[in-house]
Amino acid sequence: MSDSAKKYTIAVIPGDGIGKEVTPWAQKALEKAAEGVAEFEYEHFDLGAERYLRDGAILPEEEEDRIKKTDAILLGAVGDPRIKAGILERGLLLKLRFDLDQYVNLRPSKLYKGVTSPLANPGDIDFVVVREGTEGLYCGAGGAVRRGTPNEVATEVSINTAYGVERVVRYAFQLAMKRRKHVTLVHKKNVLVNAGDMWQRIVNKVAEEYPEVSHDYLHIDATTIFLVSNPSRFDVILTDNLFGDIITDEAGAVVGGVGYSASGCINASNEYPSMFEPIHGSAPDIAGQNKANPTAAILSAAMLLEHLGFDDAAKKIHTAVEADIEELGSTTRTTDEVGRDILARM
Amino acid sequence: MSDSAKKYTIAVIPGDGIGKEVTPWAQKALEKAAEGVAEFEYEHFDLGAERYLRDGAILPEEEEDRIKKTDAILLGAVGDPRIKAGILERGLLLKLRFDLDQYVNLRPSKLYKGVTSPLANPGDIDFVVVREGTEGLYCGAGGAVRRGTPNEVATEVSINTAYGVERVVRYAFQLAMKRRKHVTLVHKKNVLVNAGDMWQRIVNKVAEEYPEVSHDYLHIDATTIFLVSNPSRFDVILTDNLFGDIITDEAGAVVGGVGYSASGCINASNEYPSMFEPIHGSAPDIAGQNKANPTAAILSAAMLLEHLGFDDAAKKIHTAVEADIEELGSTTRTTDEVGRDILARM
Ligand SMILES: CC(C)[C@H](C(=O)O)[C@@H](O)C(=O)O
Ligand SMILES: CC(C)[C@H](C(=O)O)[C@@H](O)C(=O)O
Repeated sequence: MSDSAKKYTIAVIPGDGIGKEVTPWAQKALEKAAEGVAEFEYEHFDLGAERYLRDGAILPEEEEDRIKKTDAILLGAVGDPRIKAGILERGLLLKLRFDLDQYVNLRPSKLYKGVTSPLANPGDIDFVVVREGTEGLYCGAGGAVRRGTPNEVATEVSINTAYGVERVVRYAFQLAMKRRKHVTLVHKKNVLVNAGDMWQRIVNKVAEEYPEVSHDYLHIDATTIFLVSNPSRFDVILTDNLFGDIITDEAGAVVGGVGYSASGCINASNEYPSMFEPIHGSAPDIAGQNKANPTAAILSAAMLLEHLGFDDAAKKIHTAVEADIEELGSTTRTTDEVGRDILARM
Repeated sequence: MSDSAKKYTIAVIPGDGIGKEVTPWAQKALEKAAEGVAEFEYEHFDLGAERYLRDGAILPEEEEDRIKKTDAILLGAVGDPRIKAGILERGLLLKLRFDLDQYVNLRPSKLYKGVTSPLANPGDIDFVVVREGTEGLYCGAGGAVRRGTPNEVATEVSINTAYGVERVVRYAFQLAMKRRKHVTLVHKKNVLVNAGDMWQRIVNKVAEEYPEVSHDYLHIDATTIFLVSNPSRFDVILTDNLFGDIITDEAGAVVGGVGYSASGCINASNEYPSMFEPIHGSAPDIAGQNKANPTAAILSAAMLLEHLGFDDAAKKIHTAVEADIEELGSTTRTTDEVGRDILARM
């Protein structure tokens, strides 16, 4: 470790299911990639289903405060079939995204050489979804009356603000400047006329500041078609919280499985730490079997490094992952084998 | 025409773009298939973009009243780039679905022999999406304050009722009884906890009445993965209005294009006429060029016949369409050529 290496504290939240198996590999890759350029200290947080079942805690304030003081977060996955849907998701994962104001949920999709896509003619796939992370239908606004009766009414409210939309739109255009300079807004403005209209107006306004970036618009339903029929048409996809959730899973499938898809929940103003996680879930069906592919988690460590400004270190991970997939992507390996193989190349 | 043929009035609303080119073929197929068993009288409605631009009318009350008195509706497509998104969609198409209480939006997806799917290994695809048609985010509830300012807030409200959900859930289980006896509920109950929880509880309750039908649950994001990686796993997919919109387009792509996907907006209580339409839109980019595939529209005529109880007549259309696709599905033909080819086989 060189004397000049910068010091960072990383919160590690393996969470549930396969999250616990893949996160250690993300941490190892982070450590190895940063050798000599950055010094990481890790703070482990025992949060998720086991903890909740043990003592009822989901995200105690004191622990959240400690997480807020770290420089970045590595997260595995959240969700467990023993616990009612929504409790951990809303109480832990979404609470962190919202409280830490991680308004850019960044999700690159790339078809790696050596990966078999389910598409017959996938073409070159290389796009990034910029998903808004702190608004929309994810706010938790809504409720139910006369629950359990024939007269029950349940609502969900999508809240969208110009403040929240404009900052993520600006991020997407800035990102497009570093890429192929095209932004596609995805919404459903022919039905969700209030929110859709606001998104479109703000995109049109921000676009004027980026004359080199072209932009178009697609309805969410049409987008699901193009992701299958012509995924190469996309460069930067810009969309809201729910639509982003939906299309990034479809995108993950199209590039050969969510096992290769990492994501960053980014507070682009750096008031709070950003969080990096594979886009896959806790996968209870294969948890504990040393079967899960740690590649997405390892790639999320690369995103963490990029976020902290260590592009060269991130590149080491990308290069190792690309070589690993190209050579061994089609073989069946355990979690630990894939982890070791990638680490060995770094 | 036999003397005993029953008489029906069909409202024909070609609408916009390619809707005008494909709907005449749906009408011709309907006419031919029903020869000798039913007598149809057609009432044409000049509704859509042209009408709106001419005299500002979208769906005048007097015309809606006449539509309500018909026995069924053939619709083409609604939407025109010259008109702000949402005006015709909400004012005409969704207004009909809501006012006529068409609570079952039925969308079969089938991979026909002779069609090339974009998937490398599509397998046998044959499922039906039962999409709720009168609730959810499509209600038009929501608004905006401080529009156009940096302090704008725009909301969209999803309204879901036990009454509305239970009737469509029951329809899905009844349909499953006539098929492979499996229902998959699709929602996002780990985030939309109020609506998702209600859907799941009602599914569990109704399922008790159908012990032969198995059911499972998938999040909407996971569903988009399975539609690409393993579409054969689905029999009846049951979901809300917006999720149904999204996955039926993806499903259309997976079975080789929305050009083969028909739908019925069904009032299963028969208080009002049901409406049959291709799931594709008005496709302004190819409108007026005699290029659109009329197959989906023709299949929607078959769904109309089934709805009125003329299964044999519907079968004539299905058989002709299947033979046409198997033999000529991969050739490039004009709208009129496809229409003529299918009619010639009936
Ligand atoms: C687990 C769930 C709450 C989460 C989401 O919906 O955002 C997940 O699907 C994701 O995409 O990160
Ligand atoms: C045109 C639009 C309002 C409509 C919908 O969203 O329902 C269409 O996409 C469909 O699926 O029929």
